[in-house]
Amino acid sequence: MYSLQFTAESSSDGMLERDFTVGDIPGVLWSPDSPAAGRAPLVLMAHGGGNHKKHPAMSGRARLLVTGCGFHVAVVDAPGHGDRPRTAHDEAEIAELFRARAAGEPEGPIVVRYNDHLANLAVPEYRATLDALQGLPAIGTDGPVGFWGINMGTAVGVPFVATEPRITAAVFGQHWPDVLAEKAKQITIPIEFDLQWDDEHISREEGLALFDAFASKEKSLHVNSGKHKELPRFEADSAARFFARHLGRATITTA
Amino acid sequence: MYSLQFTAESSSDGMLERDFTVGDIPGVLWSPDSPAAGRAPLVLMAHGGGNHKKHPAMSGRARLLVTGCGFHVAVVDAPGHGDRPRTAHDEAEIAELFRARAAGEPEGPIVVRYNDHLANLAVPEYRATLDALQGLPAIGTDGPVGFWGINMGTAVGVPFVATEPRITAAVFGQHWPDVLAEKAKQITIPIEFDLQWDDEHISREEGLALFDAFASKEKSLHVNSGKHKELPRFEADSAARFFARHLGRATITTA
Repeated sequence: MYSLQFTAESSSDGMLERDFTVGDIPGVLWSPDSPAAGRAPLVLMAHGGGNHKKHPAMSGRARLLVTGCGFHVAVVDAPGHGDRPRTAHDEAEIAELFRARAAGEPEGPIVVRYNDHLANLAVPEYRATLDALQGLPAIGTDGPVGFWGINMGTAVGVPFVATEPRITAAVFGQHWPDVLAEKAKQITIPIEFDLQWDDEHISREEGLALFDAFASKEKSLHVNSGKHKELPRFEADSAARFFARHLGRATITTA
Repeated sequence: MYSLQFTAESSSDGMLERDFTVGDIPGVLWSPDSPAAGRAPLVLMAHGGGNHKKHPAMSGRARLLVTGCGFHVAVVDAPGHGDRPRTAHDEAEIAELFRARAAGEPEGPIVVRYNDHLANLAVPEYRATLDALQGLPAIGTDGPVGFWGINMGTAVGVPFVATEPRITAAVFGQHWPDVLAEKAKQITIPIEFDLQWDDEHISREEGLALFDAFASKEKSLHVNSGKHKELPRFEADSAARFFARHLGRATITTA
């Protein structure tokens, strides 16, 4: 088991941000900036393709959970993303994606294949990161843990959650069923799932098929009009409320 | 134009409840119990089949909007429901529904036909009620107006909203597309739409077809696992937040 090393620390508006490494995996842990906070639930997040652990979508969601719910939130860079080196395979797949995009060909087959490759690497990394985070006194091994990942975060999260009993609630969305549906059938925890009704990459049938595959007794699907990148901001608020319901704690105030 | 007559008044926990009539239509208006409240947005609601204006689902939703958002909320009894007389036609349709249910036959064709009949009567009643409510100084003619009706409330609400430009945001759900889809195509305001993934009466295809029919640029679908009557309570919270976003005003606190 790798231990967690903090490498930088800053704080703003009630949120403590600490960079860390677990082995050679770089991550960030956001926490309530209050010495009396005590133990609190943890939400692991996974970023989208081409992004990184501190993308504004990540820090924005973290703020909802940290200042709205009093939770800890952690994200690590996916292989080939953020502060991590790209392999020749990464470069080739990214080039192929850009080529397909420029040629107006479907991106789905390339994204599905490349994200599956990355997920195979990332799942054990997420497990090691969770092990290390649970070694921190403010998190511990007995508290509830959530997972939140959309797009590539779902490609990583579905196989991770399918084999990780410590995760008790998850938010997924916006991915294809090809590789993931079989793994989703092993997931029984409460989930919230986002899809875009006018997604130019993922058809309605594909999106609904992945939602349908989850074996969870309690599952919610949120569909919004709009294209792939137009997921409304209020779905982040909804996800934060979902975690507040399922991980305990928290009063959220929404303007 | 009928004027609005208040016939009873009570108050509890910050919510004023006033029974009223508009012509021979009995209704209830819930409002913030604060003399300094001033003008506030109005949400018209429509109750489900077999229920009435003060069913706990109605008063519970009203409380979210009145005490959470500072809005006015009004419901009237549908024809043949609540304090209103049943006609021979009502009795025959209800008997036919109970017969089909006991025989294990599909309820959909009877509900669709009977709700369409009731909606034809109820739409002008809702229009007259809105006219009368807007005559009250605390509501007025220039404020935003929402509509919230699930089940039979959607059968009434879709034709009402399709022809009523004063409604600026609406929550619908859980009905068949047969009669309503054509009318939904005329609706362009923001909507939130609920359906149950394991509804024993309305198939997924039927539910999705009605959602798809709305011409609204901004529309959200909330699907939850569970049967027809298992719509989760948190969807009422979500609907209240939807109205808070679209009708202005309001801070909602969710535990």
